[in-house]
Amino acid sequence: MIKIYDMNEVRDQDIFLRHDAVKDVSQPVAEIIRRVRAEGDAALYHYAREFDKVELSALAVTEQELDEALSAEEPEFLAVLEQAAKNIRAYHAKQKRQSFIMEEKEGVILGQKIMPLGRVGIYVPGGTAAYPSTVLMNAIPAHIAGVGEIVMVTPPGKDGKVNPAILAAAKIAGVTQIYKVGGAQAIAALAYGTESIPQVDKIVGPGNAYVAEAKKQVFGQVNIDMIAGPSEVLVIADGKSNPAFVAADLLSQAEHDKMASAVLVTESRELAQAVAQELERQIPLLEREEIARASIDCNGKIIVSPNLEQAIDVANRIAPEHLELCVDSPFDYLSQIQNAGSIFLGRWNPEPMGDYFAGPNHTLPTSGTARFYSPLSVDDFIKKSQFSYYTRPALEKEYRQVSLFAKKEGLTAHARAVDIRFDEKEAGK
Amino acid sequence: MIKIYDMNEVRDQDIFLRHDAVKDVSQPVAEIIRRVRAEGDAALYHYAREFDKVELSALAVTEQELDEALSAEEPEFLAVLEQAAKNIRAYHAKQKRQSFIMEEKEGVILGQKIMPLGRVGIYVPGGTAAYPSTVLMNAIPAHIAGVGEIVMVTPPGKDGKVNPAILAAAKIAGVTQIYKVGGAQAIAALAYGTESIPQVDKIVGPGNAYVAEAKKQVFGQVNIDMIAGPSEVLVIADGKSNPAFVAADLLSQAEHDKMASAVLVTESRELAQAVAQELERQIPLLEREEIARASIDCNGKIIVSPNLEQAIDVANRIAPEHLELCVDSPFDYLSQIQNAGSIFLGRWNPEPMGDYFAGPNHTLPTSGTARFYSPLSVDDFIKKSQFSYYTRPALEKEYRQVSLFAKKEGLTAHARAVDIRFDEKEAGK
Repeated sequence: MIKIYDMNEVRDQDIFLRHDAVKDVSQPVAEIIRRVRAEGDAALYHYAREFDKVELSALAVTEQELDEALSAEEPEFLAVLEQAAKNIRAYHAKQKRQSFIMEEKEGVILGQKIMPLGRVGIYVPGGTAAYPSTVLMNAIPAHIAGVGEIVMVTPPGKDGKVNPAILAAAKIAGVTQIYKVGGAQAIAALAYGTESIPQVDKIVGPGNAYVAEAKKQVFGQVNIDMIAGPSEVLVIADGKSNPAFVAADLLSQAEHDKMASAVLVTESRELAQAVAQELERQIPLLEREEIARASIDCNGKIIVSPNLEQAIDVANRIAPEHLELCVDSPFDYLSQIQNAGSIFLGRWNPEPMGDYFAGPNHTLPTSGTARFYSPLSVDDFIKKSQFSYYTRPALEKEYRQVSLFAKKEGLTAHARAVDIRFDEKEAGK
Repeated sequence: MIKIYDMNEVRDQDIFLRHDAVKDVSQPVAEIIRRVRAEGDAALYHYAREFDKVELSALAVTEQELDEALSAEEPEFLAVLEQAAKNIRAYHAKQKRQSFIMEEKEGVILGQKIMPLGRVGIYVPGGTAAYPSTVLMNAIPAHIAGVGEIVMVTPPGKDGKVNPAILAAAKIAGVTQIYKVGGAQAIAALAYGTESIPQVDKIVGPGNAYVAEAKKQVFGQVNIDMIAGPSEVLVIADGKSNPAFVAADLLSQAEHDKMASAVLVTESRELAQAVAQELERQIPLLEREEIARASIDCNGKIIVSPNLEQAIDVANRIAPEHLELCVDSPFDYLSQIQNAGSIFLGRWNPEPMGDYFAGPNHTLPTSGTARFYSPLSVDDFIKKSQFSYYTRPALEKEYRQVSLFAKKEGLTAHARAVDIRFDEKEAGK
């Protein structure tokens, strides 16, 4: 059963479970990466036999396999997938940025070019955690950014096939290549390239401890997204909230994983007690009862706060991944929220709306990193280059200042590079 | 003497020196961080005695010290510093982004809030590498982003004072607090906080091997900027280029550091030879002759390319930190450049213009990471939060689709969180 605390009984750092108890897999992962670099595709076939228990005849998913997957899916689900993709596209399109150019001084042109990354890799877990929403949320921002090649990797089943819902989502989201390879070996293939799989500039997407460790090890060779910690939701609810809704929202987080944290902060002790009862009523109704029970009993909390303002202060201090504000006039509080990945406003907007459908991304900063990190976005799939241009007369106006600054720093060859252009003897050579 | 190669004689990966031969300092750095966390300010005073050879009476630079530094500086230098800051501000102001809101569907509001980081730390090296330009380039983007507290740390001299040019730059750039602490201990103080020094959300700025290792070790606790590799310039010059200018530009890079790489690619064998001769003529004229000589002889190269297009292809493959295009009509080539940190267009725009004055940032991705990283910018000092709002009727239109999607993923508690709101029996409880 969930515990109810007064606010002064819980330290900020204890509100969420914030550290995965992961075993150290750095050695086996380093060996997998070494072997993929040395042997290329042969290593990938080897690991498919060893880990996925399948003898693959090819790594790439063919057009035919893709078509078969699409025709195998129920039309009703495909329609939902299409609508979700449309919503996600509409939201992320607003994130797209333009290059700029400045011509504020005669003869000086400055600017910033925005360019898509050339090629990105998306890791999609297999098995029971094979989520088509993951494909949409990672591939669509890359597609909107203009990335030319979006390479998806995902482990095959024992039948050598990929979950058709994953393939359908990939097709809808604009993925350009799909390979049947999972685990640390997939990350190594994306980072260094093999005969079949092209090297990418950045790898995104969730994965198990081996995948996370492999991403850490190849970081620098390629860029990576955040390494996610356990998932979290903080629900702030006023006394008028429906306890059944609040409990259901907490449980949608709790069913993810025994490590997930679902925490309610409310100004109403009555609501606190009602939600605790509702949780007990609803948990036995869940398919994933065992996971939800473990998460709620071990990591769940209900905290009674003197008022809403103090509840929002807590949110800002702990920077939750997901924040629900189940209150009247939730927009009144929006400007007070400084640290949160995704903010769900109102009583009719439970977190699953954001997980699947509304449009914002579901890849969010965990473990308090919303203090300095942001949700996955189009920005994660672009790069910027600065550019500048001076005419001779424009440089002539400014070079003495630059020369003085460089000399002040003791970098006299820097000073020479500007001075020499106006030194008749040297320039005339 | 610099060597001249044909393009087919040099592999891409050998064009620049790309790995610092740094010794492993992870153990001593871990110990310094542990001690700062355990002892706070006392550890900082201890390390000031041990490493900086100074007995400090206070860590914070006082207003009086700041005023003294400003009045000690030459007015001519202060005027240049002010003008450089003005240019840097004008460029970075163009990078500032707005929050957005979407109201494309009745009853659905989606958006993205852009917020400044709450508090950032800027590391500024001391001694001979104490560069006021570093202060401007790191603090001004933070200031433009709206960061409330910009905390600078820099090691004191043996007299317990900070270089006045650094203090003047800090004042002009909008730094809010300055502490006399350097090395790994400064990074630890910013990451964890001490009695005097507040904990920050992100640490930026260059530093020696100890500082870089400390940034790596505290990454996750706080965010950090890129860890810079050796500095690089690729100069692409046509046959009409003035060899004295090209040589001076290469030397402005070479004087930084023996590990710096300055490489010319030209379609003209005649220019190649003339630049080689000019380098020999100019190197003995430099104050930092020894450093420039080592950099040019060990890491410098002149590569003769069949044409300009192939030179640009090389730039895109190696993604140089700095790229100069000394050609007629340089804007003709801008759209072809996909990978470069900062692009200097034309014959009258040597790299030092960007190091100090033009406005774009001088903190740039090195070691080929311009493939996926960008110059330091206002973006590095903001974070984003998503938000969403649904009215009851808006949710009612969409919840069945969300429920279907969630069930498809086997996450039935997710489905319940939307379904329960329209289940009269449950909602009515």
